[in-house]
Amino acid sequence: MSELRFNPFLSQWTIIAAHRQDRTYFPPADSCPLCPTVPGEAQTEIPFADYQVAVFENRFPSLTSRPEAAASPGSLLKAAPAHGVCEVVCYTPDHDRTFADLSRLEANRLAHVWRDRYAELIKRPGVEYVFIFENRGKEIGVTLTHPHGQIYAYPFVPPLAGARLDQEKRHWETYGRNLSDDWLAEELGCAVRIVWQSKHFVTLCPYFSRFPYEVHVVATTSWPSLCSMTNEGLEDLADSMLKVANAYDRLFGFPLPYIMAMHQHEADYTRFRVEFTPLHRTESKLKFLAGSETAMGAFILDVPPEEAASRLRDCIHT
Amino acid sequence: MSELRFNPFLSQWTIIAAHRQDRTYFPPADSCPLCPTVPGEAQTEIPFADYQVAVFENRFPSLTSRPEAAASPGSLLKAAPAHGVCEVVCYTPDHDRTFADLSRLEANRLAHVWRDRYAELIKRPGVEYVFIFENRGKEIGVTLTHPHGQIYAYPFVPPLAGARLDQEKRHWETYGRNLSDDWLAEELGCAVRIVWQSKHFVTLCPYFSRFPYEVHVVATTSWPSLCSMTNEGLEDLADSMLKVANAYDRLFGFPLPYIMAMHQHEADYTRFRVEFTPLHRTESKLKFLAGSETAMGAFILDVPPEEAASRLRDCIHT
Repeated sequence: MSELRFNPFLSQWTIIAAHRQDRTYFPPADSCPLCPTVPGEAQTEIPFADYQVAVFENRFPSLTSRPEAAASPGSLLKAAPAHGVCEVVCYTPDHDRTFADLSRLEANRLAHVWRDRYAELIKRPGVEYVFIFENRGKEIGVTLTHPHGQIYAYPFVPPLAGARLDQEKRHWETYGRNLSDDWLAEELGCAVRIVWQSKHFVTLCPYFSRFPYEVHVVATTSWPSLCSMTNEGLEDLADSMLKVANAYDRLFGFPLPYIMAMHQHEADYTRFRVEFTPLHRTESKLKFLAGSETAMGAFILDVPPEEAASRLRDCIHT
Repeated sequence: MSELRFNPFLSQWTIIAAHRQDRTYFPPADSCPLCPTVPGEAQTEIPFADYQVAVFENRFPSLTSRPEAAASPGSLLKAAPAHGVCEVVCYTPDHDRTFADLSRLEANRLAHVWRDRYAELIKRPGVEYVFIFENRGKEIGVTLTHPHGQIYAYPFVPPLAGARLDQEKRHWETYGRNLSDDWLAEELGCAVRIVWQSKHFVTLCPYFSRFPYEVHVVATTSWPSLCSMTNEGLEDLADSMLKVANAYDRLFGFPLPYIMAMHQHEADYTRFRVEFTPLHRTESKLKFLAGSETAMGAFILDVPPEEAASRLRDCIHT
């Protein structure tokens, strides 16, 4: 059973995907569904003996292009078909590498794949938002260790994306300027939270971070999404993201679990941004999303962004 | 360093509380700060040889009644003092019990304490929302195992509480009725998601649940908060909450980690409610808040609420 259900108290959709209870859960390395198929052996999700980057539809999708019909049992108990797309993006055929291990050439190729998939999915009828992300590490709930990310094409604008777009639109209409630009000007003036700056992107720990060691990679050129980004921009983006991933792995001396989330939309008033949110607040302690964060949406942060930026700058290899 | 910082993209405050990095972390049972003080030994947080329910200010508070001054480094980098109150509520002097183990008399006494503290804190100048909750289990990030809950008095209405109050207000203004009542009428009509019903409360797995085995205990009498609740109502509430906690512990045969969150506000259009959100999606698997939930606010649920309610009904002892 798979459907959307509307929460009239929060004015947002929940995705019910019961079949996902049976999804693949930490398979042994020699039967990884994301590795290339070894000729003569059982076929994996990728029916080729090798690949550079592979993209395919999730076998246990939360959203699908051919959803079941959905019946609403009441006017306040409203259902809709779980329409959309869930794709898996395999970064490399090598099971034991991670995004941080990619060469600049490989990361740049991956960025081109992200742009291709974004451009393709955002055009599909009924798709309202395309979300490119990576859950990295078992602490985030990853059940397949092969290096991969995901793409969700939602049939609605998700709540946190919608909240942000509303604020950006309001700023644009009030001041005729981009909120992201005005914010970055103040952050660059302070300087203390900047981790790295390249031609088209600022990498920083935002003043108002919600997570320990949270890093945003924000476009300074007026690109609302990957669609409008130049090839030079894509290369710069891939390079900046590699710098973050490598700095994270040096921070505590182990591959740091994190969520990588791309925020983008087809609107002049918004600006392309990648947000990295790790969970570790120290080498051995995790930040948990407990009562205040989960039930109230009020985040408590115990690593000041200034301290995070200072430590990450020391971990950047240039 | 402790202060609030405003996120202009989400229009919400983050609480920065750097000193909490040093908070007490899994002390040995014989030096639990929430146990009564043993005469002649080092004093705990509670300087008495015994107690029934104990409430005191958190030694590592995120919010405080005497906050440091906060300086805003820019118009979009806005700070405010971390004004508010963080209290700890010890349910019982017995280190090894949990909420589910309380007798009906003890749970009823605790409910009276909640009402007293809510009534006291909501009157304080600068307090906009009072949140009573419990984080239960190390999977939720609890660092003290002694049975206790917490109370946060925020200087702002937290985002998820605000979103809900907005929808309830809109419904009230449009239809002249309480959204909670209209929703419950439809849920009671369907019946399949009802777990338990008492004189003043309906206990159910909502149609639009965001978490596996999520349970709401919703007042059917028009009480917006604990303040207006009668003593009979408090007793009924305590009893309903005990039923949920005990059913959870029977569900998989171990004390189920969960967040217990009380939603209430001083407004006619809202209705008192307790939300329980566990994290286990099966006996051995956790639901993680990953990319879709954390970065986008779009929840994916793989245990249908109808199935959750059916299993929990079987675990209710009457």
